[in-house]
Amino acid sequence: MTGSSFGKLFKVTTWGESHGEALGCVIEGTPPNIDINEKYIQKFLDKRKPGQSKFTTQRKEDDKVKILSGVFNGKTTGTPISLLIENVDHRTKDYSDIKDKFRPGHADLTYQLKYGLRDYRGGGRASARETAMRVAAGAIARKVLGKKVKIMGALVQIGKEKINEKNIDWNQVHKNSFFCPDVTVLKKWEKYLLNTRKKGSSIGAIIRIIVKAPPPGLGEPVFNKIDALIAQSIMSIPAVKGVEIGAGFKSAELSGEANADEIYSKNRKILFSSNNAGGTLGGISSGQDIIVNFAVKPTSSILNEKKTINVSGKNTKIITKGRHDPCVGIRAVPIGEAMIAITLADLFLIKKSMSI
Amino acid sequence: MTGSSFGKLFKVTTWGESHGEALGCVIEGTPPNIDINEKYIQKFLDKRKPGQSKFTTQRKEDDKVKILSGVFNGKTTGTPISLLIENVDHRTKDYSDIKDKFRPGHADLTYQLKYGLRDYRGGGRASARETAMRVAAGAIARKVLGKKVKIMGALVQIGKEKINEKNIDWNQVHKNSFFCPDVTVLKKWEKYLLNTRKKGSSIGAIIRIIVKAPPPGLGEPVFNKIDALIAQSIMSIPAVKGVEIGAGFKSAELSGEANADEIYSKNRKILFSSNNAGGTLGGISSGQDIIVNFAVKPTSSILNEKKTINVSGKNTKIITKGRHDPCVGIRAVPIGEAMIAITLADLFLIKKSMSI
Amino acid sequence: MTGSSFGKLFKVTTWGESHGEALGCVIEGTPPNIDINEKYIQKFLDKRKPGQSKFTTQRKEDDKVKILSGVFNGKTTGTPISLLIENVDHRTKDYSDIKDKFRPGHADLTYQLKYGLRDYRGGGRASARETAMRVAAGAIARKVLGKKVKIMGALVQIGKEKINEKNIDWNQVHKNSFFCPDVTVLKKWEKYLLNTRKKGSSIGAIIRIIVKAPPPGLGEPVFNKIDALIAQSIMSIPAVKGVEIGAGFKSAELSGEANADEIYSKNRKILFSSNNAGGTLGGISSGQDIIVNFAVKPTSSILNEKKTINVSGKNTKIITKGRHDPCVGIRAVPIGEAMIAITLADLFLIKKSMSI
Amino acid sequence: MTGSSFGKLFKVTTWGESHGEALGCVIEGTPPNIDINEKYIQKFLDKRKPGQSKFTTQRKEDDKVKILSGVFNGKTTGTPISLLIENVDHRTKDYSDIKDKFRPGHADLTYQLKYGLRDYRGGGRASARETAMRVAAGAIARKVLGKKVKIMGALVQIGKEKINEKNIDWNQVHKNSFFCPDVTVLKKWEKYLLNTRKKGSSIGAIIRIIVKAPPPGLGEPVFNKIDALIAQSIMSIPAVKGVEIGAGFKSAELSGEANADEIYSKNRKILFSSNNAGGTLGGISSGQDIIVNFAVKPTSSILNEKKTINVSGKNTKIITKGRHDPCVGIRAVPIGEAMIAITLADLFLIKKSMSI
Repeated sequence: MTGSSFGKLFKVTTWGESHGEALGCVIEGTPPNIDINEKYIQKFLDKRKPGQSKFTTQRKEDDKVKILSGVFNGKTTGTPISLLIENVDHRTKDYSDIKDKFRPGHADLTYQLKYGLRDYRGGGRASARETAMRVAAGAIARKVLGKKVKIMGALVQIGKEKINEKNIDWNQVHKNSFFCPDVTVLKKWEKYLLNTRKKGSSIGAIIRIIVKAPPPGLGEPVFNKIDALIAQSIMSIPAVKGVEIGAGFKSAELSGEANADEIYSKNRKILFSSNNAGGTLGGISSGQDIIVNFAVKPTSSILNEKKTINVSGKNTKIITKGRHDPCVGIRAVPIGEAMIAITLADLFLIKKSMSI
Repeated sequence: MTGSSFGKLFKVTTWGESHGEALGCVIEGTPPNIDINEKYIQKFLDKRKPGQSKFTTQRKEDDKVKILSGVFNGKTTGTPISLLIENVDHRTKDYSDIKDKFRPGHADLTYQLKYGLRDYRGGGRASARETAMRVAAGAIARKVLGKKVKIMGALVQIGKEKINEKNIDWNQVHKNSFFCPDVTVLKKWEKYLLNTRKKGSSIGAIIRIIVKAPPPGLGEPVFNKIDALIAQSIMSIPAVKGVEIGAGFKSAELSGEANADEIYSKNRKILFSSNNAGGTLGGISSGQDIIVNFAVKPTSSILNEKKTINVSGKNTKIITKGRHDPCVGIRAVPIGEAMIAITLADLFLIKKSMSI
Repeated sequence: MTGSSFGKLFKVTTWGESHGEALGCVIEGTPPNIDINEKYIQKFLDKRKPGQSKFTTQRKEDDKVKILSGVFNGKTTGTPISLLIENVDHRTKDYSDIKDKFRPGHADLTYQLKYGLRDYRGGGRASARETAMRVAAGAIARKVLGKKVKIMGALVQIGKEKINEKNIDWNQVHKNSFFCPDVTVLKKWEKYLLNTRKKGSSIGAIIRIIVKAPPPGLGEPVFNKIDALIAQSIMSIPAVKGVEIGAGFKSAELSGEANADEIYSKNRKILFSSNNAGGTLGGISSGQDIIVNFAVKPTSSILNEKKTINVSGKNTKIITKGRHDPCVGIRAVPIGEAMIAITLADLFLIKKSMSI
Repeated sequence: MTGSSFGKLFKVTTWGESHGEALGCVIEGTPPNIDINEKYIQKFLDKRKPGQSKFTTQRKEDDKVKILSGVFNGKTTGTPISLLIENVDHRTKDYSDIKDKFRPGHADLTYQLKYGLRDYRGGGRASARETAMRVAAGAIARKVLGKKVKIMGALVQIGKEKINEKNIDWNQVHKNSFFCPDVTVLKKWEKYLLNTRKKGSSIGAIIRIIVKAPPPGLGEPVFNKIDALIAQSIMSIPAVKGVEIGAGFKSAELSGEANADEIYSKNRKILFSSNNAGGTLGGISSGQDIIVNFAVKPTSSILNEKKTINVSGKNTKIITKGRHDPCVGIRAVPIGEAMIAITLADLFLIKKSMSI
């Protein structure tokens, strides 16, 4: 497994299994003299934490982060920052159910195919629990980008229920359990999710991340276009099946005239008549808001019995018990924000290296 | 600009500007003793070449590829393969129109913002002409993957016109000018595109790439999941605005029950009841077909006048003349195939390094 | 600081400051199904540990390693292996002496110049304590290479006192406090070092690492030649000032006739008349023993007063107190072995990716 | 072969075989708006070119460099710079002698072992001809570093003949055929080399590279210390067997007192009492001159017959004919300078990314 690192200069390496001793990450490349402390990082982790509301899993994940290196007297020193979260209850469960069977829709089968063995406890390395460290690293990435760059996420669709784009109010996002920016749909969503949960079912979602006032000039054509790295970083989040920037898939249906974002200037500021591009031209940020949407599939951990095979290849059946999220998309909001922050922080440092 | 390389072991580095002396790429990591010659690569380049039909640009790009290193007596030697295409007519045009103005929807503005200067001839480095080398590298990537792995692309939507999924016949793809797998829509599409062209307009498209019988075990969790690297590689293609795998954005609307791909075995072969996952579980290929869709925006090179600014920041207007594709999505088909081939070849070599 | 990782596929990332909470490393790319446990790693750490004899520092470093991830039921799973050593007494010392002054020969000045601030406790990130994690990672690298590859280190010179090459007996190396392969010099060295220590002085050393029976074909020309990566890995060890392979600097004085290692075969085995090359030709291992020598400078932590400046740039003086090694070269032996093991493990995995 | 790239931000990728169609390199990461033209690069190539004097090989290598991309109107644009040198006479020779035999001391055997086949014409990829592109890339690296950073190389020893350190005059280096800084040894060296050549023999050499006034703060601890990357870059040059920094191997013999470079300040400038460190502390440049020595073995291309085996493993003999350098170390001077320039340029860009 060689893919646990992301970034070239601001580089995040995560490690840890769902039910191992601990989870952690090492963050290389943070510039020195930045204020960082555990409390600041914890704030972001708490947003992702399960058990926050009745709409997310009731599993207890305490997720207390510790800084083990790279910060001295409250300031970054430029050396690698090591973060750690201990897995408190990591040895208590009974895994005889899933030890020898592959849960459909999970990584059980492919880990076995690739590695010939696997840590079956709670999904091991493939568990969404790994994303806790992305959120922690994202908190530090925001500091690298500076206060002026705002990265905001919201849930814009669950199942077939969409928000009304006209009602978007970003100030509402943190006032409800769904990270939803449209207060008019809250009741409907609540009913919908409670019903989904009651049935032991699950449902997918669409998340939007917006970067307000990004620095222009981020992105390294041709393969490390800002679009391309955003796509990689978002698609690397467990359960994500699609990602789009700006008008995204809708741009396929547009004519060149309808899609064009005309450029003009006012008081020496560069402005655009629209933002179908989603803030990027030729793989480089233009300074316009960056707009990203991504789709999260419904979790495969549902209560109805499904066909599968066991490690010997025999046909069998499985039920995935446990307290799971009816809509994992909700908790994907802070994860998506974090991945965008990490991606931009790296491109920001690379851009600085090119300045004359 | 530090992003002209893609891949870790099978690494492709492209270089060249649209109207510079030449275009080229260096391909590191090709195993030795593989049959490669110019004729084989040229076959793939010719699929991407403009001027193939009345639905693509009539610009003349001769695109004759030369192998300059890494192949000896018709076999790869394991050393870097250098490919080159000379730009035959590269000094003839008049660029006074676009030299000092930024074409909306193009990379002109962002290159200027990032680098402070730009090669304005035909888009320079940001030109889609750069993708010729991706197609050439993709041809070599296919050889690395071996004959059993089939990578096939098709156009499944132009503007609002979709194919009928039930009519898909992959044998039709190379028998029409659109790489369209549904013969029943050909006439409609032809009329639609001719009309678009006549108006000097353009239209977007959706492309599908399928990998038949991919090796299981490809993909390096967590950040280099096969999904994540496919997303990066596809989104790095000029004009691409969205990418999805398997059920993609539709999976947001599905319940866990509807989305689940159940597993069973028959004659010792692992099979699935459906393929919403698109061939990947936990970021690792399962052996099921890999299914990727991506959206290409309409080219911004259209004949109507648009608002823009010049290099001094003054408001002005621009018309992009020249012979352009009414639907750049058509030529994105072989490029998408190539990027998937390159991505898989790299993951294939990495997987081999882990075998015991 | 972007240089805390080494390796492409077998990648080691170390983190931690001398007197921070803990030290650790993350090892990506270890193949699955390899037996690893803490006791096995601890054995190598104990070789490097201070306080082993009167010739090394008497500082207490308990250095108990914990495996936090990547190993399940005693076997590697292919996921990142996280190792951790807690710094037990990390808050007890008084650093007022060196807080505002730069110790000559240490990294104090350059860290301040580069980062604008530094963790001054015990050298912070620049402390040789960081090398504990290299030794731990080296233990795992040996497992990747397999039992047939023997990596052995020895001290061959301290100050001006050299061993007699004719007396080398590798079985003696672990039977004395110097890792010395020549028993005839032990008494002289003992007296010499005790005297050096008594004076509060220090002395340099030369270490030799030999790889017996390395796999042929390791090394990636042109920049990642096995020689080049060995040179990087060895020169990255604190206090190392020179590295040579085979005849090394002496080869400058040889004629082509004297330097040539003739090739012959016997019973289908490839053999050589000599080994001036040190086991590498064209940057690729030939299968002959790999021979590396490296020079370690005397530690700058000595008892006599030296001129220096303080953080304000004012001239001042400093004495480095504390219990230090009279010859840090002794403890460099297991570190050198570890770096060679790490380097070869990475090249070994890369080589496998190229096999057909 | 995955090792043809060097550098993280300022990245040089070379390609090409000695007797293939052409040689070239791609240089990514050059900042925009730097004056570059072919004449400027050619000047450095001409220093390395064979046939410059009777002391180097009389082979004709015309080595006319062409810039194919990345430069527009005489300025870098920030995009990859592609350089190419055509191999003019690349198909004329008869290689039947060496086609099936392995030349001792050359890479013939190891390429065959690793790749199973090889381009045997003139050493193929392993030929020193590959270094032409390093020299070309080094010329561009100097521009990235700026005019204030002086990188100077000299030959300080051939065979057992050393210069007198007291006579060093850097102004003499380019006034003689040996890049020798000590005029008093020129006659002796001339006689020595002519004699070596007459005998069909060869001799090794030691080269010194000095960087005057390097920027402080270059180097990325712990594995990418400036010392470590210099060691890698220098040891990657063909025929190099040893590299040392500052006092190097002599530091093993020094006491801590003798080795210490005391620090003081004068007129706000940081100064040192000596330079045993060779300009680096803790892997970071201090601002003192960087001093590197490296040893080049005698070429194995000599006229006397040597034992070897053929591709079938049978014992046989070989004589390497042709016009070869009696001392390849001479031409290693500009190559060493180039590798140091490339290494520093990359660290310089990385350092900029960390600035606040």
